[in-house]
Amino acid sequence: MSSSPSISQALETGITFAEPLFELIGRRSFDGVGFTRAAYGKGEQMAHEVVAKAAAELGLEVTHDAALNMTMVLKGQNSALPPLVIGSHLDAVPQGGNFDGLAGVLAGLACVATLIKSGRIPSRDIHVMAIRSEESAWFGAQHVGSRAMLGTLPAEILSEARRVDTYRTLAEHMEEAGVDISKIAFGTPLRDPQTIAGYVEVHIEQGPVLVRRKHPLGVAVGIRGNRRCRRAICHGAYGHSGTLPRALRNDAVFAVAELVCAMDRLWRDIEEDEGGDLVVTFGKFVTDYQRHSVTTVPGQVEFSFDARSLSAETLDRVERTLMDTANRISKERGVRFEFSTLTGDVPVDMNDSFCRQLIKGAHELCIPAESIMSGAGHDAGDFAESGVPSALIFVRNDKGSHNPEEAMEIADWAESVRLLVWFVSHFEEIASHAE
Amino acid sequence: MSSSPSISQALETGITFAEPLFELIGRRSFDGVGFTRAAYGKGEQMAHEVVAKAAAELGLEVTHDAALNMTMVLKGQNSALPPLVIGSHLDAVPQGGNFDGLAGVLAGLACVATLIKSGRIPSRDIHVMAIRSEESAWFGAQHVGSRAMLGTLPAEILSEARRVDTYRTLAEHMEEAGVDISKIAFGTPLRDPQTIAGYVEVHIEQGPVLVRRKHPLGVAVGIRGNRRCRRAICHGAYGHSGTLPRALRNDAVFAVAELVCAMDRLWRDIEEDEGGDLVVTFGKFVTDYQRHSVTTVPGQVEFSFDARSLSAETLDRVERTLMDTANRISKERGVRFEFSTLTGDVPVDMNDSFCRQLIKGAHELCIPAESIMSGAGHDAGDFAESGVPSALIFVRNDKGSHNPEEAMEIADWAESVRLLVWFVSHFEEIASHAE
Repeated sequence: MSSSPSISQALETGITFAEPLFELIGRRSFDGVGFTRAAYGKGEQMAHEVVAKAAAELGLEVTHDAALNMTMVLKGQNSALPPLVIGSHLDAVPQGGNFDGLAGVLAGLACVATLIKSGRIPSRDIHVMAIRSEESAWFGAQHVGSRAMLGTLPAEILSEARRVDTYRTLAEHMEEAGVDISKIAFGTPLRDPQTIAGYVEVHIEQGPVLVRRKHPLGVAVGIRGNRRCRRAICHGAYGHSGTLPRALRNDAVFAVAELVCAMDRLWRDIEEDEGGDLVVTFGKFVTDYQRHSVTTVPGQVEFSFDARSLSAETLDRVERTLMDTANRISKERGVRFEFSTLTGDVPVDMNDSFCRQLIKGAHELCIPAESIMSGAGHDAGDFAESGVPSALIFVRNDKGSHNPEEAMEIADWAESVRLLVWFVSHFEEIASHAE
Repeated sequence: MSSSPSISQALETGITFAEPLFELIGRRSFDGVGFTRAAYGKGEQMAHEVVAKAAAELGLEVTHDAALNMTMVLKGQNSALPPLVIGSHLDAVPQGGNFDGLAGVLAGLACVATLIKSGRIPSRDIHVMAIRSEESAWFGAQHVGSRAMLGTLPAEILSEARRVDTYRTLAEHMEEAGVDISKIAFGTPLRDPQTIAGYVEVHIEQGPVLVRRKHPLGVAVGIRGNRRCRRAICHGAYGHSGTLPRALRNDAVFAVAELVCAMDRLWRDIEEDEGGDLVVTFGKFVTDYQRHSVTTVPGQVEFSFDARSLSAETLDRVERTLMDTANRISKERGVRFEFSTLTGDVPVDMNDSFCRQLIKGAHELCIPAESIMSGAGHDAGDFAESGVPSALIFVRNDKGSHNPEEAMEIADWAESVRLLVWFVSHFEEIASHAE
């Protein structure tokens, strides 16, 4: 389908239909600082209702699964074929931004609005999905809605995860929202992944890469896995800063700084010398507020560690280096390291054929776009892990996410809608190469 | 004077006289956790009164100068000669130890008690001094009493320094204690340093060096000067830990860790390769409690810096390296360093002849002793800077100072009294070489 005048006009109508919903949902979830839409709570529910109403206006069939994920169906020419899902989430972290999640659901809605206005019926059903509880900020558990749907949510999370503001369990909040817990407590998929032809998600970029490269869109080749230590402690010994010679010190700041610098060197080696993919972050590094002082040798440092990579091997190597280096430093500096259990998600590849076709589509539509990585997790990763061919389109955004400063431009978002329309229109050809 | 039987007995009597005062003053200043003796406050005043009473029992003349420093005079054979001062302080930091300061005043008292009991009249007057307000913990200003006496206390401190617990000025607290501020507000010495033949101070070691080397006593060759930055901030930029590639980061933890490691290398080079004297401490290193998280690139680190050395040149070199390295890192990592004004005390040498004689005396008395450095400031430094030949004797102490765990043994303290008696007895000979 070339960019015919009628599609251009339809696209404008589709954009015009969906765009005001950013303002409406934003206004209703503004908290004075940013935008708050609690997972399985008031803000998320409000957004679901606004979007459901808009979908109904478009004539879409609106259904909910047992986890309250919402599906808005545009019937295609052949409803017997597995549908294509276009999805994202509607929850937002406390005092977060308006676009994270919402941009993807509204891009899906704008895409089907465009198809409807253009009078073109897609080859198969298009399911626009608003997925529940993606953000880990609420329950310390991410992607609750998609995992519940795909049957990959561990049952214990229901009773163990507690919402950060209420300290009540995920199960309680889900039940309060109307979920029948018995239907998701046994890991039974609510929908067979085999019956989904593909999953595509539009999301704001959560880093500055596209801005720096002046590309409105990016196509993620994969989602970085991570290896994470939420809380590590280096135990040294406090002492007088003027009277403890080097050889008699057990200085926790020197010890952890040496560990940080060693991991920085490994990062540089892997990225620059080997061309590997890695990011490393020590987000917390704190001497003890109660005991530290300008003239006291620091006896304790608490810190955190987060490494992410598209390569599971790289993550293993990072973990080994972290532990080996900590052991060496312990011996040399007379300190002791204590690490909480390292946790992590494995890296996930997006569907290679989807990626190549999306880059090709952007090229045809004259949208500057490039392949990038996703450093953060997304529902798309869960679909991909469950065997659904999946793709992730990033929209340029300068100021990161999870803060009110998110700087997505509507014009860039509109380009993602245009690319979605292209993708849907070429889906039969694309799907035939995607297995 | 050799260690004749009568001196041994007298020493035992002198020790027995002074030792119970540790217990009495400790009991009266115990705060439930440690020992608190507020400078120009209740605890210090109580200790002064106990010591004054004991001095009166010994028949010493007790006087106070305008800053309320107390002098307890044992008349010598020739009162026309400038006296020898044996002094230390009686204030203690909040929840501190019992021995820091007190050990020195009581050593002086035990020394003169020994001389009295032995019937030996010293060649010149001995002034045992209890000096006020040595600890900087109370007013953020150290050595207030000795500096007021020597005329080196800057006038603005009187109105600007505020006590940490009351937030009232030093001048108010001094006046409340009975000081006539007008007498110390113009930097006029309360006592001409030229009229003091020598100053010797016994103090617990505030580090573990003597314990490790199994020496009950040490003789300080000098007091390290310092170069200090109480508050430095590295400004980077916050961001998502998974999405910010290395080249686009402004990571404050990596930046400060690199600075810490660079200063650690300089320290090692100066100490190991050049045999220089240096200690370096980054006592505080904190990411922002409000904004840091496991998955956030740290956008800010606040830290402190303290370097100490016997060499002013080394301190200059340390400061240059700190600033040059911070500048280089700023450019390479896209961060900005902000340093509060670097402050510092210059290194002070103790009197070389006094030091050699004290080591010789310890040798004669079969007390294992060695030359060490003082990493912390002491009133002895102020006397030395004012031109008074000064010495500082350290008593072994394992657990640092400024905490209730101070581990001075009375037997070690008694050795310091024995050495003081030897020093006083040989003072004419020693003084003739001390200029």
